[in-house]
Amino acid sequence: MPTALITLAAGQGSRMNSDLPKVLHKIGGATLLEHALASAEELDVDRRIVVAGHGAELVRAEAEDLGVSDVVVQEEQLGTGHAVLQARAALSDFTGDALVLYGDTPFIRPETLSKMAAARQTHAVVVLGFEAADPARYGRLITKGDDLERIVEFKDATDEERAVTLCNSGVISADAETLFSLLDEVGNDNAAGEYYLTDIVKIARDRGLSAGVVTCEEAETLGINARAELANAEAVFQATKRVEALENGVTLLAPETVYFARDTYIGRDTVVEQNVVFGPEVTIESGAHIRAFSHLEGCHVSRGAIVGPYARLRPGAELSEDVRVGNFVEIKNATLAEGAKANHLTYVGDATIGARANLGAGTVTCNYDGVMKHHTDVGNDAFIGSSTMLVAPVKVGNRAMTASGSVITSDVPADALAIGRSKQVNKERLADKLFQKLQQIKAKKSGGKS
Amino acid sequence: MPTALITLAAGQGSRMNSDLPKVLHKIGGATLLEHALASAEELDVDRRIVVAGHGAELVRAEAEDLGVSDVVVQEEQLGTGHAVLQARAALSDFTGDALVLYGDTPFIRPETLSKMAAARQTHAVVVLGFEAADPARYGRLITKGDDLERIVEFKDATDEERAVTLCNSGVISADAETLFSLLDEVGNDNAAGEYYLTDIVKIARDRGLSAGVVTCEEAETLGINARAELANAEAVFQATKRVEALENGVTLLAPETVYFARDTYIGRDTVVEQNVVFGPEVTIESGAHIRAFSHLEGCHVSRGAIVGPYARLRPGAELSEDVRVGNFVEIKNATLAEGAKANHLTYVGDATIGARANLGAGTVTCNYDGVMKHHTDVGNDAFIGSSTMLVAPVKVGNRAMTASGSVITSDVPADALAIGRSKQVNKERLADKLFQKLQQIKAKKSGGKS
Amino acid sequence: MPTALITLAAGQGSRMNSDLPKVLHKIGGATLLEHALASAEELDVDRRIVVAGHGAELVRAEAEDLGVSDVVVQEEQLGTGHAVLQARAALSDFTGDALVLYGDTPFIRPETLSKMAAARQTHAVVVLGFEAADPARYGRLITKGDDLERIVEFKDATDEERAVTLCNSGVISADAETLFSLLDEVGNDNAAGEYYLTDIVKIARDRGLSAGVVTCEEAETLGINARAELANAEAVFQATKRVEALENGVTLLAPETVYFARDTYIGRDTVVEQNVVFGPEVTIESGAHIRAFSHLEGCHVSRGAIVGPYARLRPGAELSEDVRVGNFVEIKNATLAEGAKANHLTYVGDATIGARANLGAGTVTCNYDGVMKHHTDVGNDAFIGSSTMLVAPVKVGNRAMTASGSVITSDVPADALAIGRSKQVNKERLADKLFQKLQQIKAKKSGGKS
Repeated sequence: MPTALITLAAGQGSRMNSDLPKVLHKIGGATLLEHALASAEELDVDRRIVVAGHGAELVRAEAEDLGVSDVVVQEEQLGTGHAVLQARAALSDFTGDALVLYGDTPFIRPETLSKMAAARQTHAVVVLGFEAADPARYGRLITKGDDLERIVEFKDATDEERAVTLCNSGVISADAETLFSLLDEVGNDNAAGEYYLTDIVKIARDRGLSAGVVTCEEAETLGINARAELANAEAVFQATKRVEALENGVTLLAPETVYFARDTYIGRDTVVEQNVVFGPEVTIESGAHIRAFSHLEGCHVSRGAIVGPYARLRPGAELSEDVRVGNFVEIKNATLAEGAKANHLTYVGDATIGARANLGAGTVTCNYDGVMKHHTDVGNDAFIGSSTMLVAPVKVGNRAMTASGSVITSDVPADALAIGRSKQVNKERLADKLFQKLQQIKAKKSGGKS
Repeated sequence: MPTALITLAAGQGSRMNSDLPKVLHKIGGATLLEHALASAEELDVDRRIVVAGHGAELVRAEAEDLGVSDVVVQEEQLGTGHAVLQARAALSDFTGDALVLYGDTPFIRPETLSKMAAARQTHAVVVLGFEAADPARYGRLITKGDDLERIVEFKDATDEERAVTLCNSGVISADAETLFSLLDEVGNDNAAGEYYLTDIVKIARDRGLSAGVVTCEEAETLGINARAELANAEAVFQATKRVEALENGVTLLAPETVYFARDTYIGRDTVVEQNVVFGPEVTIESGAHIRAFSHLEGCHVSRGAIVGPYARLRPGAELSEDVRVGNFVEIKNATLAEGAKANHLTYVGDATIGARANLGAGTVTCNYDGVMKHHTDVGNDAFIGSSTMLVAPVKVGNRAMTASGSVITSDVPADALAIGRSKQVNKERLADKLFQKLQQIKAKKSGGKS
Repeated sequence: MPTALITLAAGQGSRMNSDLPKVLHKIGGATLLEHALASAEELDVDRRIVVAGHGAELVRAEAEDLGVSDVVVQEEQLGTGHAVLQARAALSDFTGDALVLYGDTPFIRPETLSKMAAARQTHAVVVLGFEAADPARYGRLITKGDDLERIVEFKDATDEERAVTLCNSGVISADAETLFSLLDEVGNDNAAGEYYLTDIVKIARDRGLSAGVVTCEEAETLGINARAELANAEAVFQATKRVEALENGVTLLAPETVYFARDTYIGRDTVVEQNVVFGPEVTIESGAHIRAFSHLEGCHVSRGAIVGPYARLRPGAELSEDVRVGNFVEIKNATLAEGAKANHLTYVGDATIGARANLGAGTVTCNYDGVMKHHTDVGNDAFIGSSTMLVAPVKVGNRAMTASGSVITSDVPADALAIGRSKQVNKERLADKLFQKLQQIKAKKSGGKS
């Protein structure tokens, strides 16, 4: 069934104490909104509507980045029912199911939403519920057999109803046309003067439509309302990713010190040492080795490659098999071919490094002239001497060498040695004299003081 | 009421297994002594006496750093009463309250001591007590209504008294003259042959003076006697600081990996990534971004600045708005004006960097000549090429450029380009020849071996 | 009594989801096999036999590294009894005790095995047992007084036997000849068709031999079968090492962030800051200071030395008293004499650095010519200017200086100043012109686009 996601993301999140709209805070490097949308990844999603409010322009920008078709703005926050109604115009030409999600609820599993879709075969309205360990003030789902009779808010519930532990997550699915039609009947005759989405269940039943419940783990329904909750959710996310990595056969020396992004992929028998941070879009093949204190984002590391300690791989870093990137080395938008090495104190940006090429300590690709970025090309088996400046655009040929301390401004042919440095001169006894002179200056300067 | 703090800091702390006096061990980058003294920060403190003993000279040095007026030495450790009496001479001209604190008890809250000061309006002697979860062998506070009747040591207590859960923290307040007068009557007729401060309560009551109790959380009274306790106290301190930061609206991606000092200040919506260490005297404005693996001490970071990953800011680093300090970059005693950048592998010490100036990878301010430190001045919009050595004292003018690999020993005028490097020469086929020669040498060397 | 260890290391460990044989996974930088063998370090071990199977060649290589006398291969995995029998030929000329250990059981304490050896005075067969908190499906040790009557598998146990909480660890000791003779009688008439080592207890008793039990903590018997268990075992190991370090008087600012190897030695009152990783073979004297984010392997740090933050000491780094190794500095196979300094962005490999010598920021020992490694020798009180390339083999004499940015290819005499750099030239207004030209080029390039 083609499905339209209506994701509510208008709340201010005032308990976050932040200028950033709540749904733009992140877990595992991805916004809460991205997590919420990803929970529908198993469905046949045809439209994605985000209902924004506070910080609408920022939310719109992120939603567009995520490929959302429509962002509608709820100018006044008049309740969840009112929020969903903002999506009506955008879906005027849509036929299919509407599923209401929440931008601050990142952990609902795709399987759970698939179950809801399946339950729609049987029920006109499907509500996602969960067995609460401590039901506290959640709304209760009152069922009879397979049917959901009604949703009772805690404050309106009888003692008998409060004894029910099946609670309302707020996630709801119905045929889109039916949903909006039901919402037309929802009123705001309550203490808060708000239009509640949950009221549609009673209205549906009054119309003779059936309603059903799909249940999920309580942990899936975790909503984020304060920074402490966000930090806790991040911890839960990381714990899950760490267990997943271990089960996939990744060797984590100290799992509690490794931080994953949503989309981190690491192959079997790859070793990840202590204190490694994976930003978004990292893939590591099997049998690689990521050493301690490394930081990786937007890169690919091949089998047999050894990275770190203290390596920083930035977006566009592409490491072929058996590449070695060592300490205090930064790689950005560069490809290192098989067996290439950059072991110490090196910056490689906007470059292609050939197979088995060796970049000495202190090598820098000078890719920025103050206005534009330029490319450096180092050939196979090239040997770049320590502290060589490769002033891009520049090419060093296969098997060429550069003398250490050289500034390379023009291309070096294959097999050639490029030198760009002065000859050393030793001035006898001059260090001694210089040192004595400096001591005198210092003594004079501090003369009056001591 | 003017108050004299008498802080007992004479103990050996033998369970610490350390040459360092116990009160000089640190939590959050500050000594236990500093924490203890800071707990009185809400009071009208007129005098601060530290009673030192073991490692007295080291304790004296730290106390003086903290602005303590007098350090007196307790030559022999004859009990807490004896220790307090060492402060008598230093307070001979003092009129007001005396408050006895402990140098190894870092967590008493200022509000608690304010409550004690208030209780002094009603009682001649005020004792700080706490409800112990497990009273174990603590001394018990025996009260009657609002009055403290006596303090009973555990070993002397009846079963009825042992059932009391209100315990003695040791912190005591009284009029200074009264305190010393009461201490004159304290004897050492006990198993340890020591003079106990707690005995003054009974003596006061015998004189017809009133005594009272102020209570605090048990956690405030935590004393440090072993390294495991110190580590635990540090963990408690860090947990408190992390919660505080979250509540203040700081974004901590992984709070459990961020370490704060006592005085760390971070503004709202600043993002702090994983594995960041804040040493003393760091202030970060709102809306900055501290990336992973960064280490900051004695520095100031302005709004919009991005620091790290792997950035080290040392004392005197002053980053203006939108400054960018990147990976493997160290900044010490240097000001970077608005929008300046030092993105890679750079050392900036004793320098002023102008607005929007760009320091290329491998830039070094050569500030030390082996005897003295010198200053480097880089102008606005200057472009410092990669691996430029700025040999201080030296000035680079506004909008000036240096060619990469240059050693700059004299000033560069505004808008000028400074070059200090040799021209590149390519020696055709020489890399090939060199490489073959090296292979031959190696083969010869290992000739006999294989 | 001379003892032969028979360590079973043939299992596939399929739950590890790894190509690496299970016993080669590591805790604290040492393989499980190394830990298992080390548990016998108090015994008079005469022979060490490892029974390999899956990944036998890799296990053999590690066993040989560990000085194991014999690796025998169990071609088919037919049970523990069958595995032990593989050691028979290798021990044909051996007289003494045989002790059966497990390569995946790393935590048995040497004291425990000493107790087993002592118990062998009284009993022909000694089994290591433990009181299980939750006996679950462990085999039960059925005892009568001091005697072990039999070992009952859970599935064969009566309700009464299941109530027993004394469980079988699998570790067994007996006279070698007796052991093999008992094993000859073990059959495989059971569901799995395997030969069980535990069956020898009943056979021994049937022969009139006595059997006894030595007990240990349940935690000692922890076996590793999955990566999550390995991670947990690593956590247990690290927790133990951290407590040990604290008790030895080491100052750990955040013990939970410091990772130790099996053989890490750190002296009293040495300070270790947050996020420090110790690889194998590190010794640190008393009163040193290891700052945050440092990584040490195979090195020695003397009293008064300060290392880091962000220092990497690799094998062969030898730091004398009061040496200072600062941020983004790597030291490998090099000795730094008393008071030498390498404070910033430096690579020192294959070198001898003299007392009080100062290596400026960006110094590199160019030790590799593409074929061989060469040595650098820097004299006492030498001053190496920033970004000096020391092209090895090369010597810098005592008190000599190098100008910053110099490439040093030939020896520098004592007290001399070596310069190898071009003179600076300032080209007036050229920066301005260059910048305008670049802007034009950029504008032209993007001409059609905007």
